[in-house]
Amino acid sequence: MNNLPIGVFDSGIGGLTVVSEIIKQLPNEEIIYLGDTARVPYGFRSPETVISFSRQNVEFLLKQNVKCVVIACNTSSAYAFESLKKEFEIPIFDVVSPIVEKFKKDKKYNTIGVIGTRGTINSHIYSKNLSGLTVYESACPLFVPLVEEGEVEGRIIDMVADKYLAFFDDKNLDALIIGCTHYPLITRVISKRLPNVELVNPAYQFGRVFKKYLKAKGMVRSKKSKPKNKYYLTDITESFVNTAKTFLGKEINPQRAIY
Amino acid sequence: MNNLPIGVFDSGIGGLTVVSEIIKQLPNEEIIYLGDTARVPYGFRSPETVISFSRQNVEFLLKQNVKCVVIACNTSSAYAFESLKKEFEIPIFDVVSPIVEKFKKDKKYNTIGVIGTRGTINSHIYSKNLSGLTVYESACPLFVPLVEEGEVEGRIIDMVADKYLAFFDDKNLDALIIGCTHYPLITRVISKRLPNVELVNPAYQFGRVFKKYLKAKGMVRSKKSKPKNKYYLTDITESFVNTAKTFLGKEINPQRAIY
Repeated sequence: MNNLPIGVFDSGIGGLTVVSEIIKQLPNEEIIYLGDTARVPYGFRSPETVISFSRQNVEFLLKQNVKCVVIACNTSSAYAFESLKKEFEIPIFDVVSPIVEKFKKDKKYNTIGVIGTRGTINSHIYSKNLSGLTVYESACPLFVPLVEEGEVEGRIIDMVADKYLAFFDDKNLDALIIGCTHYPLITRVISKRLPNVELVNPAYQFGRVFKKYLKAKGMVRSKKSKPKNKYYLTDITESFVNTAKTFLGKEINPQRAIY
Repeated sequence: MNNLPIGVFDSGIGGLTVVSEIIKQLPNEEIIYLGDTARVPYGFRSPETVISFSRQNVEFLLKQNVKCVVIACNTSSAYAFESLKKEFEIPIFDVVSPIVEKFKKDKKYNTIGVIGTRGTINSHIYSKNLSGLTVYESACPLFVPLVEEGEVEGRIIDMVADKYLAFFDDKNLDALIIGCTHYPLITRVISKRLPNVELVNPAYQFGRVFKKYLKAKGMVRSKKSKPKNKYYLTDITESFVNTAKTFLGKEINPQRAIY
């Protein structure tokens, strides 16, 4: 069982930032990735629709015989994690819980900002779970399409960042959770606008916690053979494949996933 | 049969600009609208996926017993119209053909620009069908999310418009086809950047041609009762309902469509 691959799903290709972190922390693990590019983005859809799509993604990964499932999408983590945990017996991990745990434990943080999709922000997943802290949340719906279009620097993204982040100017943040898989690609833009705020990347925090968990549960892959990762997308276009390279740092050769 | 409703589908809510035009031209017609908001946008998806989703939309409308189907989405018109016409017996209309006919007939136009989603532009539907004219095409993928976020005026949309429309500066256009349901909401922005170019709205041209067709075929609704339009969405959120108001000019009370 420990030699089975890890299943990772995301609304699209942004979740490859989480895959990249898993590869860094656990280079011997084999990964099966599913990006729901036929229905991306999830960020502005209703909770019911996000849960329903996420369920189909888990079912697809179960058919690939994975040992556990990682929800790489923040919106899906915010809306669907609790439902999926109840519905499926396989261990399921989300990218929100490790961050929540971090801030619960580390007493140096008092005031936290969160940016994310409309879904992640409307779910209030962070403020609900960090009741001891002051949490300010702001949706940044244009960041995803801008990053997807390669607008990761320059005047357009700077102006959009100013529009969304000005809200935090008088909040005295100790840290800002960049709660969407696309945001690590614009940390320079965000830091320029909020220069004295620590940015916290859920993918990084997730990778560390996930490694500890697999080790503690004896679920680490022991095979010596080089892992062969597989990438499935529900829709394949040149643009998705090109953007995948930006997120993962290397080329993927995706297969079409059919539910 | 002529008293049955007209079925209209779109990737989302943008197609309500086409509904609005049908209501203007044919106020006695009854309309059943389907917006595939669970999978919107279609603009960056592959032809195969757009055809498959469009097919499901037609099948849903057929179950509602419509007399004909209107494809309000430009991407879907560009990629799926030919396939759908072959697959279904019911009359199907698209928003691209009326514009093509206009430019074929009207000899005053020599050089035409087209803006649209990546899908509409990559299909080359206009340049293929207007071989006698000089046609320049440019994808404007960020216009849809900007309009959806209410960014229809101001410096951000102006800068994005400049980025996309500068391409036409030396092209001496006689007209620019604004080939996406969202673009009528930013005609002022486009005209400011290309001040001497006539903007051609597919929804308007479609409405005129469609009215002629229904009359010629004796398909006009003859009932005296006030038409009761129905609006179906595959996903319902507050944001979709609010944006619908912008596109249609009045509130809708949508029902959830399940395929």
